[in-house]
Order: sequence, then C-alpha cells, then structure tokens
Amino acid sequence: MAKTRWKGGALLSPVPAVLISCGSMEKSNLITVAWTGIVCTQPPKLYISVRPERYSYKLIEESKEFCVNLPTAEMARVVDWCGVRSGKDFDKFEYTKLTKAESFSVSCPSVAECPLTLECKVEQIIKLGSHDMFIADIVSVGAEESIIDEKGRLMLEKANLFAYAHGDYFALGKKIGDFGFSVRKKKRGKR
Amino acid sequence: MAKTRWKGGALLSPVPAVLISCGSMEKSNLITVAWTGIVCTQPPKLYISVRPERYSYKLIEESKEFCVNLPTAEMARVVDWCGVRSGKDFDKFEYTKLTKAESFSVSCPSVAECPLTLECKVEQIIKLGSHDMFIADIVSVGAEESIIDEKGRLMLEKANLFAYAHGDYFALGKKIGDFGFSVRKKKRGKR
Repeated sequence: MAKTRWKGGALLSPVPAVLISCGSMEKSNLITVAWTGIVCTQPPKLYISVRPERYSYKLIEESKEFCVNLPTAEMARVVDWCGVRSGKDFDKFEYTKLTKAESFSVSCPSVAECPLTLECKVEQIIKLGSHDMFIADIVSVGAEESIIDEKGRLMLEKANLFAYAHGDYFALGKKIGDFGFSVRKKKRGKR
Repeated sequence: MAKTRWKGGALLSPVPAVLISCGSMEKSNLITVAWTGIVCTQPPKLYISVRPERYSYKLIEESKEFCVNLPTAEMARVVDWCGVRSGKDFDKFEYTKLTKAESFSVSCPSVAECPLTLECKVEQIIKLGSHDMFIADIVSVGAEESIIDEKGRLMLEKANLFAYAHGDYFALGKKIGDFGFSVRKKKRGKR
C-alpha cells in the first residue's frame, strides 16, 4: 500500500456544493464555490474562499454579507452554470429563473429554491494567494418547511443535497452510519 | 417556499469525512474532524478546526504538522470511532489496527489504508470560540496506486470516499454532472 508522492494540491474531497448569493435585492449575484466549511461551532462561523478577480468578490467585500444556500441534486445544472459564468455578463437570478427571497438578517437575497440558507456576516478577510478567505458569522438560518418535522427538528436528509469531488458532482448515496454508531449498544441485531 | 427562521447554526452539509493523523511516528494520534476545507488553491492550503481541549490539539500546536487522510466508505466505522474516543484513553493506531506509514514531508505518520493523504504544515492558528482554526500549507500528497491511472492521473472516483451530513455518514451516490457540464456542447445526445 505504499503511496506515490505528488506535490501539494487542493485535493480534499468530497466538499459541499453551495450557491452563494450576495449583493443587494436590486443588484445581486450568485456564485458557486467549493471552498467552504464550518470553522467554529459556537459561535457558528463558516468561511468561503473567493478569487479577488471574481465579480462577487467586491460585492461581498463592500456589503460584508452573503448567504450560503444549500441546493438540491436536481439543481446541479444551475449550480454548475453559476460557477462557470460571471455576474459581469449575466444577471444570474434573471437568467436562471431562481427566485430571490428576502433574507432575515442580511440585506442580500436568499435563494428560495434551496431548502436551507445560512445567512452570514463577514468578520475578517484573510489573503492567502489565489483565494481570499472570508470568515463569517452565521447569523440566521432559513429552513424550508419540507425539511422540518412536526417537532420542529431539521430533517436534512430530506434536502437531497449533493457533493463535489475532484471535478464531479455526486448525489449522496447510501447511509453508512451515524455519529457515534461505532460505540453504541446494538439495539436491533448486529449493525 | 417561505422559510422558517432559526438562529445561526453550524448547518453546512455535506462536509468531508476525514481522518487526521498527528504527532510523531512514536507518539501519534488519530482524530476525525468534519470542520475542514480547502482555503486556497495556489499555493494549496487547507484548514482544520479543532477544540483546544482535544488531545490532538497540543500535538498539532507543538509539531505544527498533521496529515489529512481521506478514508473509504468501508472505513466509516473506524472513522466514527476515532471521532468519539480520545487519544488520552487509547493508542488509536494500535486499537484500530490502522497502519502507520512514513509521510514524505512531515514527521507525523500517514494512514496507509486511506487512498489519499494530504501532508500539511501549519501556517497560522486563529482562535474563533469553541474551535481554533489551523490554516496549513499542503506540502505533499500521497496517492495510492489503485487511484492513479496509466497516465499518472488521479482517479479519485475510485477512492470510494464518503461524506458527513448533519450527523449521518453517506457514501457518494450517483454522478449527476461534472464541472462545466451546464455549458458544454452536447456530444452524445441530450445530457
């Protein structure tokens, strides 16, 4: 099982496939980023890394706000499109027919078609090279009714999310465990 | 499609399921983290966020090195176990029977059973709250032969990676597209 050595590369996988909305309700944009993650649980914070030359960079830098919208697997084509086209050339909400919804805590729109939206306020910007990292507080979450059960709990498994891995988009497949399953007392027979 | 408002929470999904190895070849540890992501493509950098009270925190803080090992779906149980047990109580390599392999550029071991390993050197530590973020340069990548094709290209789709989403582990499922598919000229009929 000896490995071959390669030079360092951005080869972490799978990563979230997310649609970032930014700007104002009037002048907004959508971008797809793969470089995102939770950086702190309490207080809840995440980051997105964006190339400074991207159209959305300035919108986020100026407003210090953005939304991370979690799209469904059915939206893979539009998510991809928002990642390869620029807001310089397209009004992406108009072109994609995605629906701008008012957010709760930020002035940029949320994407109505995405079942979950994390509303974010930028706390710091760190320059790293090709990308700058925006570290942001998650100030509100917007959740669609279809993914909330009768007790008010999130059923994120109903959101039909998808992932990005080394150039490909994948739907989530078989559930192979849940947190703590390796140490839990067996209830219903082995596994 | 109006959404319900919740307070901010760490609800990004799906995220990578990774096994972090750290310490030295003699005194090493394994931890599972969900809070990881690429923060810069060039130079390649990633982060992991770790609670300061975790056993591995000091090992990484002192050595300034760690490896991000990408496990296969078959390894979900051992990945989960390394996330719920502490290196204070277990020699995790010994207990899990995972194999320590020498890394190329760092003194901590890689996990031989993981098809891809990203070897990392810590560049900065940012305190955020419950978690501190370690931003690190990816200095080398170790790739198993089984995921390299005859032309030397990475076939990460052969690695059988998995993801973590809101408490559950999921194998990757159906491929639903690849980067740029939304704008590419159709070659073999529609889609």
